[in-house]
Amino acid sequence: MTANLDPVHLTQNLIRCNSVTPAEGGALALLDEVLSEAGFTCVRVDRGGVANLFARWGDKGHARSFGFNGHTDVVPPGDDAAWTHGPFSGDLVDGVLWGRGATDMKSGVAAFAAAAVDFVRNTPPEGAIILAITGDEEGDAVDGTTALLDWMSNNGEAMSVCLVGEPTCPDEMGEMMKIGRRGSMSAWFTVTGKQGHSAYPHRAVNPLPAMARLMDRLASHKLDDGSEHFDASSLAIVGIDTGNPATNVIPAHCTGTVNIRFNDLHSGASLSKWMEEEADMVAADFGVGIDMRVKISGESFLTPPGPLSDLVAGAVEGETGRRPVLSTSGGTSDARFVKHHCPVVEFGLVGHFMHQVDERVPADQITQLKTIYGRILRDYFA
Amino acid sequence: MTANLDPVHLTQNLIRCNSVTPAEGGALALLDEVLSEAGFTCVRVDRGGVANLFARWGDKGHARSFGFNGHTDVVPPGDDAAWTHGPFSGDLVDGVLWGRGATDMKSGVAAFAAAAVDFVRNTPPEGAIILAITGDEEGDAVDGTTALLDWMSNNGEAMSVCLVGEPTCPDEMGEMMKIGRRGSMSAWFTVTGKQGHSAYPHRAVNPLPAMARLMDRLASHKLDDGSEHFDASSLAIVGIDTGNPATNVIPAHCTGTVNIRFNDLHSGASLSKWMEEEADMVAADFGVGIDMRVKISGESFLTPPGPLSDLVAGAVEGETGRRPVLSTSGGTSDARFVKHHCPVVEFGLVGHFMHQVDERVPADQITQLKTIYGRILRDYFA
Repeated sequence: MTANLDPVHLTQNLIRCNSVTPAEGGALALLDEVLSEAGFTCVRVDRGGVANLFARWGDKGHARSFGFNGHTDVVPPGDDAAWTHGPFSGDLVDGVLWGRGATDMKSGVAAFAAAAVDFVRNTPPEGAIILAITGDEEGDAVDGTTALLDWMSNNGEAMSVCLVGEPTCPDEMGEMMKIGRRGSMSAWFTVTGKQGHSAYPHRAVNPLPAMARLMDRLASHKLDDGSEHFDASSLAIVGIDTGNPATNVIPAHCTGTVNIRFNDLHSGASLSKWMEEEADMVAADFGVGIDMRVKISGESFLTPPGPLSDLVAGAVEGETGRRPVLSTSGGTSDARFVKHHCPVVEFGLVGHFMHQVDERVPADQITQLKTIYGRILRDYFA
Repeated sequence: MTANLDPVHLTQNLIRCNSVTPAEGGALALLDEVLSEAGFTCVRVDRGGVANLFARWGDKGHARSFGFNGHTDVVPPGDDAAWTHGPFSGDLVDGVLWGRGATDMKSGVAAFAAAAVDFVRNTPPEGAIILAITGDEEGDAVDGTTALLDWMSNNGEAMSVCLVGEPTCPDEMGEMMKIGRRGSMSAWFTVTGKQGHSAYPHRAVNPLPAMARLMDRLASHKLDDGSEHFDASSLAIVGIDTGNPATNVIPAHCTGTVNIRFNDLHSGASLSKWMEEEADMVAADFGVGIDMRVKISGESFLTPPGPLSDLVAGAVEGETGRRPVLSTSGGTSDARFVKHHCPVVEFGLVGHFMHQVDERVPADQITQLKTIYGRILRDYFA
């Protein structure tokens, strides 16, 4: 290891580890080696077949502990032959680094690890730096960041603040950071009536009119107009299905599915309650049974603008000349778990090519990201 | 042939002809033989791969021509092994005749043929008796009774009145006859939007809310309260389908199907126009495309109570002691074609076991039906 750790080279080596969820693929072992050599205490926190890595430099339980959360697992590459450069090649061609995880997010993990190693070597801070790196962000995420946070709680490890290194910039480096995320949930409805002949509808109980009414009511309802830091919540019907091939048969069952992206004016529980009331009302009106099953993928969260977002935005502006927008847009991230432990924001590079064939990133962007992360650490411990 | 033709034996022989639509199976050939021997002029009217039989006793174009319409084709038996007696066995056990077509409606055809043969032999009438027997009532019915009626029109053959011999009695012999039928039609809707991610619904056009609204509007609309001789019309949603497995994807298309049974206050055209207007309105409201395809299986028809229904009801009451209800209930029948040519009513035996495994009928009921049909002929020509 040289004093100045090259984040492009580290990203390249991480890409060469085949770590499609839930495979560790050597990626966490590589980080363990790099961080241990720089004086980090590293602990593998594996749970339920998922590998995770906890690493701390400095004193346990220090009041100034800067945390970083990221993942080394990647989504499947699809058809290898469709890639210009192999998905696990890590080829660096004309200043562009190719491979699965080049943007999401081996580059982010490498940039922070490199920044942290340089920082503790050159200007050892008064405090601690923690990396909580999971091998299951792209999968169920049940035994990933949550397992790390559980382990930390049980072992007296804590972060004062946390930065998640997911890609956050839509097009230009530095233009956006996240201070929250909308929540996401799905609900599956099954309406049950009584089968019969279309010519004798009074002898049957048709579940479909009830389904149409329920879906119309759910989709027509305005959840809100947005809140201070969030866009309006939205509900999308994603499917209604019956599977009845015969026009002379009234079916006994049908199913409907909705997906909701919600802001901080709602919770998974409040939305479940609302949908359940709607379903009960429609069930009573139509004389059918309606079963509802929900899955809350993540609650909304917000770290209100303040010291942490100012710190990160200032460092980004100092290195890129752009003041990042404080956004809560997009899907979910593991920040939804971290928010239960400490203030958390997200900043990373440009998210082009995430989950796509030919995922790739300009090498310069990784180097710039390392510089930004280094400045964040310097400013935090200043 | 004996003077008194046994309708049970004739039904038995017809059941033994495997005449699953569109196969003739020897059934029409057998009728041809029986009727020709009794002095009927028989003509095979085959069209589009379907066999039909026209038979007339008496003078062509006579002002008193009693017509009978029926079919010898049957629906498939399904799993032969599930039958107690083979579907084409025609087994007569303990007074019960077994097999496909025992009720729908080889028995009806046999009973009328036997009644007509006896009648013309014993008391030759002043007038004509016509049998229009099709081999495609259970199928598309495009080249069945319609082909016979077309041929008759082209050849100067006409019925003054017509009796359709479909089963009409729900439980007891003689309790119901039909003086009309509701119309039947189906409509298939395809709603087209624009696919997208559930997290960004504003970038997509979701076809499902429009489908839910359209189906809710169609199903909620009261078509009518019934008319003098008809029950209320009814619309049944029989399917809404999407086929989208992903909760994070808004689909581009979905389909919905409705089936309508309508009385004489509507027509296929008026209902098509109504649904098209509803679809256009919803399409405009939701910014989606809605394509509608309709199939009108049959318009409603009514032969108002009068001389023909009085004649049939009187004969039924005379033989069974029950005055049949004049009904317009149930599905469609070939009477929907005959009504364009002459007054038409329907009377037949008890419809239990139609289209079911172990279709069967008490032999006595066939004999009684022959007696009723004979009395109808006697009264008509009296």
